[in-house]
Amino acid sequence: MPLLGLLPRRAWASLLSQLLRPPCASCTGAVRCQSQGTRDLSPQHMVVREKILDLVISCFKRHGAKGMDTPAFELKETLTEKYGEDSGLMYDLKDQGGELLSLRYDLTVPFARYLAMNKVKKMKRYHVGKVWRRESPTIVQGRYREFCQCDFDIAGQFDPMIPDAECLKIMCEILSGLQLGDFLIKVNDRRIVDGMFAVCGVPESKFRAICSSIDKLDKMAWKDVRHEMVVKKGLAPEVADRIGDYVQCHGGVSLVEQMFQDPRLSQNKQALEGLGDLKLLFEYLTLFGIADKISFDLSLARGLDYYTGVIYEAVLLQTPTQAGEEPLNVGSVAAGGRYDGLVGMFDPKGHKVPCVGLSIGVERIFYIVEQRMKTKGEKVRTTETQVFVATPQKNFLQERLKLIAELWDSGIKAEMLYKNNPKLLTQLHYCESTGIPLVVIIGEQELKEGVIKIRSVASREEVAIKRENFVAEIQKRLSES
Amino acid sequence: MPLLGLLPRRAWASLLSQLLRPPCASCTGAVRCQSQGTRDLSPQHMVVREKILDLVISCFKRHGAKGMDTPAFELKETLTEKYGEDSGLMYDLKDQGGELLSLRYDLTVPFARYLAMNKVKKMKRYHVGKVWRRESPTIVQGRYREFCQCDFDIAGQFDPMIPDAECLKIMCEILSGLQLGDFLIKVNDRRIVDGMFAVCGVPESKFRAICSSIDKLDKMAWKDVRHEMVVKKGLAPEVADRIGDYVQCHGGVSLVEQMFQDPRLSQNKQALEGLGDLKLLFEYLTLFGIADKISFDLSLARGLDYYTGVIYEAVLLQTPTQAGEEPLNVGSVAAGGRYDGLVGMFDPKGHKVPCVGLSIGVERIFYIVEQRMKTKGEKVRTTETQVFVATPQKNFLQERLKLIAELWDSGIKAEMLYKNNPKLLTQLHYCESTGIPLVVIIGEQELKEGVIKIRSVASREEVAIKRENFVAEIQKRLSES
Repeated sequence: MPLLGLLPRRAWASLLSQLLRPPCASCTGAVRCQSQGTRDLSPQHMVVREKILDLVISCFKRHGAKGMDTPAFELKETLTEKYGEDSGLMYDLKDQGGELLSLRYDLTVPFARYLAMNKVKKMKRYHVGKVWRRESPTIVQGRYREFCQCDFDIAGQFDPMIPDAECLKIMCEILSGLQLGDFLIKVNDRRIVDGMFAVCGVPESKFRAICSSIDKLDKMAWKDVRHEMVVKKGLAPEVADRIGDYVQCHGGVSLVEQMFQDPRLSQNKQALEGLGDLKLLFEYLTLFGIADKISFDLSLARGLDYYTGVIYEAVLLQTPTQAGEEPLNVGSVAAGGRYDGLVGMFDPKGHKVPCVGLSIGVERIFYIVEQRMKTKGEKVRTTETQVFVATPQKNFLQERLKLIAELWDSGIKAEMLYKNNPKLLTQLHYCESTGIPLVVIIGEQELKEGVIKIRSVASREEVAIKRENFVAEIQKRLSES
Repeated sequence: MPLLGLLPRRAWASLLSQLLRPPCASCTGAVRCQSQGTRDLSPQHMVVREKILDLVISCFKRHGAKGMDTPAFELKETLTEKYGEDSGLMYDLKDQGGELLSLRYDLTVPFARYLAMNKVKKMKRYHVGKVWRRESPTIVQGRYREFCQCDFDIAGQFDPMIPDAECLKIMCEILSGLQLGDFLIKVNDRRIVDGMFAVCGVPESKFRAICSSIDKLDKMAWKDVRHEMVVKKGLAPEVADRIGDYVQCHGGVSLVEQMFQDPRLSQNKQALEGLGDLKLLFEYLTLFGIADKISFDLSLARGLDYYTGVIYEAVLLQTPTQAGEEPLNVGSVAAGGRYDGLVGMFDPKGHKVPCVGLSIGVERIFYIVEQRMKTKGEKVRTTETQVFVATPQKNFLQERLKLIAELWDSGIKAEMLYKNNPKLLTQLHYCESTGIPLVVIIGEQELKEGVIKIRSVASREEVAIKRENFVAEIQKRLSES
């Protein structure tokens, strides 16, 4: 240790990161093959992802959102001072041509930059894309340095809490639709958080730092968060204790009423504004039929700098534990809030465009669904092939090529083995192992009789169909199944 | 200019890049908002992309491919020495933790790394994803530094030319399906290229460099390519002229036969192997019914280092020029080839996995389709909203929220304005301008009578439906339309 202590900080980090590298199946000691904290997505992963993303995107479209995309990297200056304590986790690009660039850290800041740059005053958009964060990889919980985010945001000046309520409705629709088990959405307001800090005696210069500490309450005990606030961030112990009283409070709309009466909080203008909006929000959530899923929670702070109003975070209450299924602790699976000042930061004249949005933590959802499938021993097909073209005899490559081209040209998903003379058993095994339901067979007898044999892989039944009708017959069978 | 000459190379590049920056709508001189050569994709772009990518992906699936994804960045060593002269165009990441990383330059090298790392010996996969190249941005032709690629590859040891023929079939299916007008696929073989170099007297050490020059023949005249080969790359003029004779040749299978008889080429073992494979390929292409789309073209070289056998490139012959449509020169729209050695470069023991694949140049295709739509004045809907919830009176927010939640919960795509008391005309205008076909209207009269009015935006007809039946009625109308 004393020796290591002599190394410069950077060399230390490098050494440590190499020690922490997860082992790689094919690497010898000398060969490294992938950047740490990243991974490939196999066909099995992709099938699960595609299903989940389809559900998420169709919900976003149901709410009238338009699609959009931004580049993987932004000018570094676009991203700085937006993420509070997490800014150090940004990936920077090497300066190869006079521009300082960073990989995007979320989809929200690029969206705000887009609105300002194009002078868009109103927009409801969704964005599904990768983001990158240099977090120490704790791969156990499905946390990677490259991950997918699914964002929905509403930009524009509207009457209060209507778009905000829709964001919560969307989170409910998605989490219900994915059947992940019971969930709860914690709600708070940045103005209530700041008001609480003010009335507890936190100096204004420490607001964001203390906010980051509070944000850790879902992973750390109050004792440890208090320790961080007092020892690391220099907060007076009695101030920390006052905060401690508040952050234990959570409940429904009645807690909102209760806080209106709170002797300290009710003296703070900001907090009152936040409470007023939350009251209205609960009214709309009741009309949407989702108020029972929402909990006003004073411990919710959200670490990011850019929030200005309502904030929320969805947590899974439990995952249905089948026999043998390990209980999963995945933390928050969706989150978001209102950020009315961010767009103005990119506008040369500071013109503001109020925004509210949400982000679905799809990586965690992928992980849960994959774990559940693993426990159940569920298998997924990684291809969609409907028909296999086979032959029992040698020298039938030409006929197979003609047949498969006909199938492809008719829009039928078809495969064959890339062999001149494959064995029939090999061909049928391939269908069984990959789940292809139908086989068309061409051999000497079929050629002589001008027919094609169609075989059902499941029942092993075979029928002969006239050569000229075989595509139609297959289409009929596929439409029936 | 003399002054500028004194600047260090890097400062020069930086200055130049700033001068070349395309002007940005919202930037003042002091504010830069996006990295050069990149761009945002607006909802209009996204709709076009989604349609084209759907067609491409469904073709890949029709041929039995599995989906896959790899990280945006790889260890730099994975990517080095794979791309010939283009290697300098790679984006490197800043060293922030001991790893040297680069953004992926194509999807082929990561695929080969994946196969080697996971010891996969056989796989048919597609991959749609972004890649990054630091090319000088010539944005006119739809060339950006970040762009999307759609790759299909077949890995595995199979009988010759069967997977290769399927790749060409896929290119034909996609280009026909997209209705981009007439196209041609140029085919050659790396072994024929190398054989041609050998018999013309190119020193073996110059093979790859001369290959890169030949590759420019679709953009440069022979005269200029010859100049590059002789002056820049030090090739003897008479050698260059011998090459010149060959690279003018293109034709069908008869040219393959002719080259078999070529006095010089027929002396080269490699070239003969390539010609043999091309002959077999043409046989299979004829069975697939696409031989008329294929041209054996000795000027096709493909610049990338990793090709070892058949190579191909699809070009659009013309775009149907409507009145007023500018003729488009977009160059190649799809390309690929066989690379039997690449996987072995990542395997500690050098085990080879032969591969053949293709890449669709979707960015160019997006550009063509967008230009065509612009010329025709075609508009696309950027949302899919089916129903709008409106009111003619004040104080109907609560009713509207209840109605829209019912629609969403029934899976119907619905929107409303985020205003407490919007004007009816504003609401109807919104439907017309965004293409929403149906409006449900709730007002005092409807509330009293227990009905909802359903209005067709196109015909302006309105009918009153009992409150409890309105969702069913809307579902009926939507299924009919």
